Parts: sequence; structure tokens; C-alpha cells
Amino acid sequence: MIIVLQSNATEENIRHILEKTEAMGLRANVSRGAERTVIGLIGPEDKLQVVPLEVFPGVERVMPVLAPYKLVSREFKGMASEVKLGGTAVAGGKRLVVMAGPCAIEGYDMLLSIAKKVKAAGANMLRGGAFKPRTSPYDFQGMGEEGLKILKAVGKEAGIATVTEVMDPRDVELVAGYADMFQIGARNMQNFSLLKEVGKARKPVLLKRGISSTIKEWLMSAEYILAQGNYDVVLCERGIRTFETETRNTLDINAIPVVKQKSHLPIIIDPSHGTGKSSLVGSIARAGVAAGADGVLIEVHESPEEAWSDGVQCLTCPQFANLMEELTAVARAVGREI
Amino acid sequence: MIIVLQSNATEENIRHILEKTEAMGLRANVSRGAERTVIGLIGPEDKLQVVPLEVFPGVERVMPVLAPYKLVSREFKGMASEVKLGGTAVAGGKRLVVMAGPCAIEGYDMLLSIAKKVKAAGANMLRGGAFKPRTSPYDFQGMGEEGLKILKAVGKEAGIATVTEVMDPRDVELVAGYADMFQIGARNMQNFSLLKEVGKARKPVLLKRGISSTIKEWLMSAEYILAQGNYDVVLCERGIRTFETETRNTLDINAIPVVKQKSHLPIIIDPSHGTGKSSLVGSIARAGVAAGADGVLIEVHESPEEAWSDGVQCLTCPQFANLMEELTAVARAVGREI
Amino acid sequence: MIIVLQSNATEENIRHILEKTEAMGLRANVSRGAERTVIGLIGPEDKLQVVPLEVFPGVERVMPVLAPYKLVSREFKGMASEVKLGGTAVAGGKRLVVMAGPCAIEGYDMLLSIAKKVKAAGANMLRGGAFKPRTSPYDFQGMGEEGLKILKAVGKEAGIATVTEVMDPRDVELVAGYADMFQIGARNMQNFSLLKEVGKARKPVLLKRGISSTIKEWLMSAEYILAQGNYDVVLCERGIRTFETETRNTLDINAIPVVKQKSHLPIIIDPSHGTGKSSLVGSIARAGVAAGADGVLIEVHESPEEAWSDGVQCLTCPQFANLMEELTAVARAVGREI
Amino acid sequence: MIIVLQSNATEENIRHILEKTEAMGLRANVSRGAERTVIGLIGPEDKLQVVPLEVFPGVERVMPVLAPYKLVSREFKGMASEVKLGGTAVAGGKRLVVMAGPCAIEGYDMLLSIAKKVKAAGANMLRGGAFKPRTSPYDFQGMGEEGLKILKAVGKEAGIATVTEVMDPRDVELVAGYADMFQIGARNMQNFSLLKEVGKARKPVLLKRGISSTIKEWLMSAEYILAQGNYDVVLCERGIRTFETETRNTLDINAIPVVKQKSHLPIIIDPSHGTGKSSLVGSIARAGVAAGADGVLIEVHESPEEAWSDGVQCLTCPQFANLMEELTAVARAVGREI
Repeated sequence: MIIVLQSNATEENIRHILEKTEAMGLRANVSRGAERTVIGLIGPEDKLQVVPLEVFPGVERVMPVLAPYKLVSREFKGMASEVKLGGTAVAGGKRLVVMAGPCAIEGYDMLLSIAKKVKAAGANMLRGGAFKPRTSPYDFQGMGEEGLKILKAVGKEAGIATVTEVMDPRDVELVAGYADMFQIGARNMQNFSLLKEVGKARKPVLLKRGISSTIKEWLMSAEYILAQGNYDVVLCERGIRTFETETRNTLDINAIPVVKQKSHLPIIIDPSHGTGKSSLVGSIARAGVAAGADGVLIEVHESPEEAWSDGVQCLTCPQFANLMEELTAVARAVGREI
Repeated sequence: MIIVLQSNATEENIRHILEKTEAMGLRANVSRGAERTVIGLIGPEDKLQVVPLEVFPGVERVMPVLAPYKLVSREFKGMASEVKLGGTAVAGGKRLVVMAGPCAIEGYDMLLSIAKKVKAAGANMLRGGAFKPRTSPYDFQGMGEEGLKILKAVGKEAGIATVTEVMDPRDVELVAGYADMFQIGARNMQNFSLLKEVGKARKPVLLKRGISSTIKEWLMSAEYILAQGNYDVVLCERGIRTFETETRNTLDINAIPVVKQKSHLPIIIDPSHGTGKSSLVGSIARAGVAAGADGVLIEVHESPEEAWSDGVQCLTCPQFANLMEELTAVARAVGREI
Repeated sequence: MIIVLQSNATEENIRHILEKTEAMGLRANVSRGAERTVIGLIGPEDKLQVVPLEVFPGVERVMPVLAPYKLVSREFKGMASEVKLGGTAVAGGKRLVVMAGPCAIEGYDMLLSIAKKVKAAGANMLRGGAFKPRTSPYDFQGMGEEGLKILKAVGKEAGIATVTEVMDPRDVELVAGYADMFQIGARNMQNFSLLKEVGKARKPVLLKRGISSTIKEWLMSAEYILAQGNYDVVLCERGIRTFETETRNTLDINAIPVVKQKSHLPIIIDPSHGTGKSSLVGSIARAGVAAGADGVLIEVHESPEEAWSDGVQCLTCPQFANLMEELTAVARAVGREI
Repeated sequence: MIIVLQSNATEENIRHILEKTEAMGLRANVSRGAERTVIGLIGPEDKLQVVPLEVFPGVERVMPVLAPYKLVSREFKGMASEVKLGGTAVAGGKRLVVMAGPCAIEGYDMLLSIAKKVKAAGANMLRGGAFKPRTSPYDFQGMGEEGLKILKAVGKEAGIATVTEVMDPRDVELVAGYADMFQIGARNMQNFSLLKEVGKARKPVLLKRGISSTIKEWLMSAEYILAQGNYDVVLCERGIRTFETETRNTLDINAIPVVKQKSHLPIIIDPSHGTGKSSLVGSIARAGVAAGADGVLIEVHESPEEAWSDGVQCLTCPQFANLMEELTAVARAVGREI
């Protein structure tokens, strides 16, 4: 922790800070420059996170030296993690993870049909929502447990692992009974009660980035899950909110290499939400793979015109099959495979 | 709903759209311009929210005509609502609501001392957190139920109504037993499970704006609560996330008159989170009152240096008393009182 | 300047950094913690701004200690500056500056009529654009020199000082011949050629904040002007770009107290651009005065329906007169006057 | 243009709007729904851009139907444009454009050495700044005309076309005498005086996107150049400003396919500014090519530690050569070549 003092800070101010920090077991290094005195504190920085040093008299600014996350960091674990996702899918290996399926589960036949087609095209996980977080209370909120049953049955029938969103800490156990992987949606990235519950569960977690969360906050939310003992976390960049209105969100492509440098966790991208328009999905999916993402999450529907949710960003099954061919070529160009 | 067609849309495209929309009971008005054909749909717009018209062949853009919220709107209720907050405090009347207290409840004596002082200075509600949503799993997470007990006892002893945050749908009943008003924090503004639970409860709700939620989304979250039958909602602008880093958040002062135009619900501001620095709180609190806010929420602590959470943005009790004098003058200048 | 090293930085890395920085005349203070080594550099920090220390082997992060601006800072000049604006108007004193007038100059009679009315209502400066920066090349680009002539004639006839935008370094001399104050618009805040030209001129400058400029960048742009010898700069907060779309911009009310702490320069607000809607202007103008702004800039037009530019955010003359009464009350409540 | 009326708009309001719009030669289509009346206007929409219909009594909202740009649009020209950049480089063809070189020109020998190496690695244009827009007036501002002379001599000696920034309308002619292509930097994207000058010149223009410009505004700035008769414009996405602070900017990868849909102009990306860190450049450059960009702009320096500007985001010559091999593979995977 570095403390920059105001230009008019007094010796009394400095003494007061040193008394406080030394009482906490930290060693201080005072450096007096022409324009500013700077105090460097040596010792466990987290102790200081609860002390509002900025309000101490004479303090101008406080700058942390260490990142606040630990278990998710590359310093804690130097090698990239591989996360098993149920069945044979693995995130973080040479082979990419491809999660595909409809935004919402709408029925058994429809889901089975999509499951078979996306699997045939190369997907190794089936996605589908039974609990849907909707901006409007009047919109379709998902089929609930009935949808989960369909998901499980279809996964078994088609021989594909499944991932589905959980929104409520009370539903974690229920969802764990039906799906191979939890999805935490963007709106719940800082729902700490929910993060703790999935942290206690023994299923992998797909943690989407909040719509305006920094990468640091996102990694801190992952830290909540690991801190509970669940190390099987896969991150998903799905677009952030910016001033641009041509697209629903702005997919933060930079987040891929940044996360790879900071953390050992796998990261995939969701170009469906990251763009909000089906005609843009292919281009951005290719970009994600080229940038080094460990996989993609793609919304696919038999008939987007009929989709109960997010039809505007769904690919049709033939479009998805085409995209998989393109992604296979790009993956090969960067030393990966599908 | 207005549908703008692509410049090369065909008659077949138009027919397809009309068939679909007429089957839903909507009347269509087709207007053929030199450069674009535009279809206006007359009838219940919400029916169309689930139909992804953007993916229909030939469609360029879809523009809704109506706001998606109903119960919270000025059109539903023309007069400004007054919300009773327990005891004598009322939000939305001539007299401003002043909520004050520490970020986190840290103990009985400390809270009682603050409660008496802020009440004496003019506050009419006591705030204090028992459940704290923290970015880091390693930070202090609040005293939990023990904190709630302290809050209730202090409120009774000091004769002041209380407000506290609820983070988990499983805690709604518990919190209702101790506090006069629920607070939904910024991170939970779109925690729809939680919104539904407080919507079923019979206590007023302070709904903070999400850090990057639009005003429309914020009103939709309020709509979730009203749709469950709980009309006692007070909105709280607490700063949004922007590119500016000098302040923790950017208080969106524009939101005050915008909300007043769109909705009948009362709106207060939280300049403590809205700025993140105690030295800025007074200026912004005055601005909020001058802009027409129905009140303020101010973090106050006996000794900010010792605060367990957010000390950097707390006022001391004497600073708060000073601010109340300033706010009284500004309130009077705009026809309000404290 | 503080240099935080990577956890695996070597002694060789440290030696390399020290050689480089000592060769520049800086004294280094090396502090070795358990997890990180930190190097504090003592001496003139600006020398280092051109050295990309981040790319030196072993460096994780570089954190400047000092703000990059000098002449505009409170440390350079502790007292608030008062800037004379031509005639009797002064920015930064007890009396507020009120600049009012149409977005664009449209003719002599129209401008004179507005000038007389806004002066009668209490304005002490007349604004009006002769050169208009427009997003579209097909929009009205201003009357040019003819507009400047009208502005000068009207200012003289009505007995009111004038301010007008200059967009091109080639026009600085021309504009100086007609107006009492230059306005640098938001889009040109980092037009450094233009800043240097007005820095050489001997007329005060109204420097609007760029639509997505940080406060630090804004102050650096002011520094460009002062560095050329022109100390008569008034800052104008006019709204920043955020994700919110209900308003044209988000007026950053926090900027007022922040600028007051960092700089001695006066700051006013422009609620017309800061909101983009005439119905919101009054509320935000009151907020600005309550927050401590040194004045306001308000777009006023005889008939907004007929305005050639920005009619949607103009007040009518009677609306402006009403607002002045409101502002007078708020100003008095915070110890200022109009 | 679509006009949505307020729910309480009167017949008188409607009549007033119709009189005004019909007087402008527009045909109106009035559609009366249960909750709102909507007026569609048929005829030249640009006439209406100067009429502030939002301030007409009874109007709630005005929604344009057409995009405001014309010459740059796909509707104006359906085929993708190919822009000749001097010598053999062409933007918009099957072969990608690769512009590489130092941020600032620092001397003849240094530039020649870089030019030869980047050309050998596959670059087909040399970049280098003689006029540098710097946030601080105390930073190195570029070598000016001396730098331009070096650029021209090096381009000739190494046999590679050149691109350099122009910041001031007074320098357009000067720069045209030395370089093969103008660069308009992000800060000058809405410097309309400058856009008009390069629009009159007969050299291609590289138009960088403003740090917080929407795609629509960016295309409008290109429109300024085309409207003056210069159709040789290449767009460059170089990162936008968001809340994320891990990277200098957030490269908007979505912009690539969006621009391809809206406009016929070529688009390249600048991953150096788009990330601000050399260790991220390769990943994002690959992403851009995979997404469909027509080329890349990469900052390269012999010794980033010694760079006078932006060393932190420069690649070394060997790093650049490596990247070119990677890009060649990705380009091939998406049907392009280098």
C-alpha cells in the first residue's frame, strides 16, 4: 500500500498514520520528496483494506500495490486450469468448448431437435434457460423446474452435457439435480448470496461478466466461488455496457488476453449477447477464438422468428453449422481445435 | 410499435409481417416513402415484446412507441405519491426525508450515539447495514441478525424509523421483523427473485439505482415490486459508473427531474456513494435538494477513521449537523422544508 | 513516481531500472516487501513521463504521484481566481456569471431582442454561435463573420459583454476582433492547435469539457492555454457521455466540487447541453448553483420551434426570466448573488 | 421521421404539427392508437433535422427513420470500396493493409531501420508521427516539418508508402507534400475544419474513430470528407473509452462487422492504441483480422524503452515479425491474405 500525502501534510499527520499502521503490524517506509512525502507500507495489504486511510488528515491518495484476488490469480497458480464440464467437455484445454442452444427452454421436442443438430455440428455442451432474468415483470420468466426436467432428459437422450442459469440461492440445489453446470448471469455477477451457494455446490460454474463490471470485480466474484471450495469456474465475457447503441453490448475482446495474464481460469465468449444481432455473431465468434478464448457460447434456435426470448440474436441451426466450419479453420490457425 | 423496413424489402416481406402481426390482433398501418416503407402497429404493444420482429426478413429496425413500465408511470397515476416510511417520516411530501447513519452497524452504543445525534440534527430515518454486499469475499460482511437486533433496539430507544439492506430473498421475512423499510442495493437492482419477495412484503422499499442501469431499467425494477402489490417504493439515485475516475461514481443529477416527469414515485439521492468522498458530499447534497429530490441518504459515523466500511465517504456527526443547516436553507429556497 | 515490480522480478531487472532513473537525476528508494518490491523515485516526475517504464523488464505497474497539471492547480495558486469577462462581468466572485442567448446567431433583430430580455432578467453575458460545429456536413454551419458582426453590434447596442465559439485556429484573430470571450467547444477541448492560439490571444476563454474527457484531461487542456500566457480561463461543465439515453448528456455535477478542490479556475455549468431538454434545464441550473458553480450558461430563444439549431433545449425568454428568479433564491441560500 | 405524441396531445397540437410539416413539403400519415397518436412523415427527412419537433406542444418523442449519412452508406454504393494508398497498397481488397512504424518520428536512421524491417516482415505502409497531439503541453510535440522530411526520404529509400497525422487545417497542404496518406487522429475526429481541408485534398485519409464517438458519428465525420469530393477514406477502430481501466481503451471489435454492414468504406484496427499494452497487441490484432478487418495499424519501435512516445504499447521489430506470421495464418483461415 502506498500513501501519497498532501503537499501541506504535517509531521503530526505522518506520526498519526505511522502509529495506526504500525499498530497493525505493518512496516512503513517514509520517502520525502520535494513536492510530496510518500509512505510505503510493507506487510499484509488486506489488513489495510478495511482502514479508510484516505480520511486520515494529510492524506491525498492511497494506492494498493497488490491485486485484491488471490485464488483466481496466476500468482497463486501459474498453469492454466482445465475445468471438466460433465461428460467429455473440458474448458481450458487445446480443444475449444462450444456451448450452444436456445435462450429459453420452450419444450422437449424443440430442445431435442436443437441438441442433436448442434452436437452434430460440433457443440460439446447444450445451453438452455429454465429461469430467465427479464427486465420486465410482464415478460416470459422461464419454464422453471419443468424446463430443468426437459433439459436433463434431452441431455441424456442426445448425449451432451448441459448448462443452465440459476438466479436464486434457493434454487441451487434444485438446479444441481438436473444440469451439469451452473450459469451465473451477468445481472447476478455480484449476487454474493448466490455466489456463495454455488461455491458450496460441487458442480462447475460459468460466471458471466456483469454488464458494467471491471475485470477486477469479475475476478473478485470468481474468488467468492473459489473461496468456498469450488475451483471449477469458467469465465464468460458477454459484452459490457458502453455509450455505443448500434449493438446491444460491446464485447470486450481485450478481456480475453487480460484475463489470461491475470488468472488461470478458462475464459469463453458469448457473441450472441455480446452483439445482440445474429448477423454479427459469426464475425465476433471468430474474433474471440483468434484472440485466444477457450470457447464460445452461441444462442441457436430452430426458428428465431418464433423464439420466446432473444430471437433477434439467435442463429438458426444451419447458420450455426456454417459458423462451426469457420471456427474450425480459425482455431487451427491459432493452434487450437474444435 | 414502428417497424422500419430495409430499403430493399419486398412485398413478400411486408405480407409476411402483416400476417404475423394481424394474427396477434394488431392493426397495421403501412406507409410507403421514397426511401423506406414503415409499418405502424396499433394495439397492445406488450404482445409484441416477445416477438423478435427484427429477425423477420426485410426488417431494418423496430422502435417501441410506449414505455415498458405501467404502474410506476405518471400516466398510470398523475399525482406524486407520498410513501409512509414508519413513524412520521413520509417521502414525497413537502418535507424532505433525511436518512442518516453508518454504512455498517458495528455495535449498540455506537449506533445509538449516532442515532441521537443525527435525529437531533434533523434526520428522520436511521440507516445502517447488517448485511453488506462486498466486492471481496475477505471483507467484513456485516453483523447479520445480531446487527438487525441492534438496529431495532436503537430505533426504538432513539425514536427514529429505520432502513436496512436486504440482499437475499431468504432474509426478507427476517429483515421485515426488525426494520421499517427495506433497502435494495445497487448490485441487486436486477435481482428479480429479491424484488418479487419485497414486493410481497408489506413494508416500504428503498430501491437504489444499479451502477449502470438506465432510468428505464430502474423503473422496470420498481415495476416488479409494484406488480406484486407493494406500492410503497422510494427510488434512490446513488451514482452511475462512467469513465471518470476522480470520483467513485458519477451522481446522475439529471435523473431527478427525469424521474419526476416519468414516474409518480418519490426519489432521493445518496451523495455518499454518489461521490465516494466525504469532502464532496455536502456540495452534492445541496445540489440534489435544489434539483427537486425528495430527500437525501447520508453516511455518518462517529469516527470515520475507525469505520468498518466506507469510512472514506462518511461525514462526522458535526459535519452532518452543519450540512443539515445548509440543506435547510436550500430547501426553503425551492419551496421545501426539512 | 512509484514503480511496482512483478512478483518474479530479478535483481538484474531492478539494477536496470535504477541505472536508467539515476542517469536522469532521480533518487530511488527501493522497498522490498514479501510479495512485491516497490521503487519510489524522488525528483522531477515530468522527466519520467516520456520514459515508458512499464516496458522495462520486471515492471508490473507505474503509478504517478503528482498531478500532471501545474499552473491551473490549487497548489500553484491557493486562492480562487477571478476572471474579468469584458465590461462588468467577472467569473469567480461572489456574484454569479449568467451567460444566455441563442445557440446560433440568426440575425440582428432576433439577437438584439433576446439580448435585451436576458439582460433585463439578470444575465451579464450574451452568447451566440457564428461558427457551429455540427455532426452532419449537411446541417447549418453558422453565419460566420456576418454573425460575428451582428454579435458585436448587438452587444454594444444592448450593453452586454459577448462570448462566441471559435473552432479553427485560423479564426482566432478574427473572433478576437468581435467578441469579448472565446468559447472552446466540447469537441475541440483537445484541439491543441486551437488551444495554443487562444493561449496567445489576450481575451478570456470559456473552455468546455469534452464529452468524454476526464477532469484531469480537462485541466490539462486548460494548462495548454495558461502555458501560453493566457490565465483568463473559465471552465464549463456541459455534460458527459454515459450509457444513459434519456438525456442527451449526463451533467457531471460532481465535477463542480472536484474542480474547486483541484484548481483555482472558475467553473460554470451549461444545463442546456447537460440535459438536452428544455424541461430539465431549470432543475439542473438550480443544482449547479447549489453545488457551488460560479455561474450558468443557458440557451435562450424567442421561439424555440423556429430555432436553427438546438431548439429542443432552449428556454423561451419568459422561462429564462422565471429561472433567474429561482436561481436568485438558491444563490442566496448558498451565500452567492446574481 | 416518426413523431410520437403525448397521451394527452390535443387535436390542436396535431393540427399545428401538420401545418408546419406540410408547409415543408412533407406528407403526413396520422395513426391514432388507443394510447398514443403517431405521425409518420413522408418526404425528405433532412429538411426536418433543423426543425426541433420535440418542442412542439404535444410531442413526446421524435424518431428518425433514415441514417443521417449518405455517401458513405452501403445504400449509396453497394460494393465494398477499394482505396489506393500510394504505391501498391490497397485497402479493401483481398490482401490486408498492414501499417507499421513508430508512434513518433525520432530521426532518419531509426526510421529507416524500422521501415526496412517492417517491410521485410510484410508491412505495406510505414506510419510515423511528425505532429503529436499530447494531453500535456509539456510532453514532446513531434518534430514537425523536419519529421515529415525524414518520413518522405525514408519512404522513398525503403520503397514503402507512408501515412502521418495532420492536426491543424493550416498544415494540410504541407503534409500532403510529404506523405502518401493523411491520418486524422481520434481527438480530431470531429474537428470539422480539418475534415473539410483533407476533404479538399487529393490524398487518401485514415480516419480514426473518436474515443467516445458512436459509429454513426464516425460515419458522419467520414461523410464530411466525402462531401468535399475526397472518396478515399479508410476507417480505423482504435478503441473507445469505457469504465474498464485494465486497458488504455476498449477496442470495439463489434464495430468491424457493423461498419461493413452500414458502409462501403474499408476498416482497419489499431490494436496498439486499442489496448495500450504491447503484451495484448498480438491477441487483438488476430481478433481483428478474424472479425473481417481490412488491415491493422501496429506501433513498432527498435527499442520501446527508448521511445519518445507510447513506448508501452510498441512491439519490437522481432515481435512484429512474429505477429505477421500469426496474422498470415489467421488471414488465410478467413479467406484473406497478407
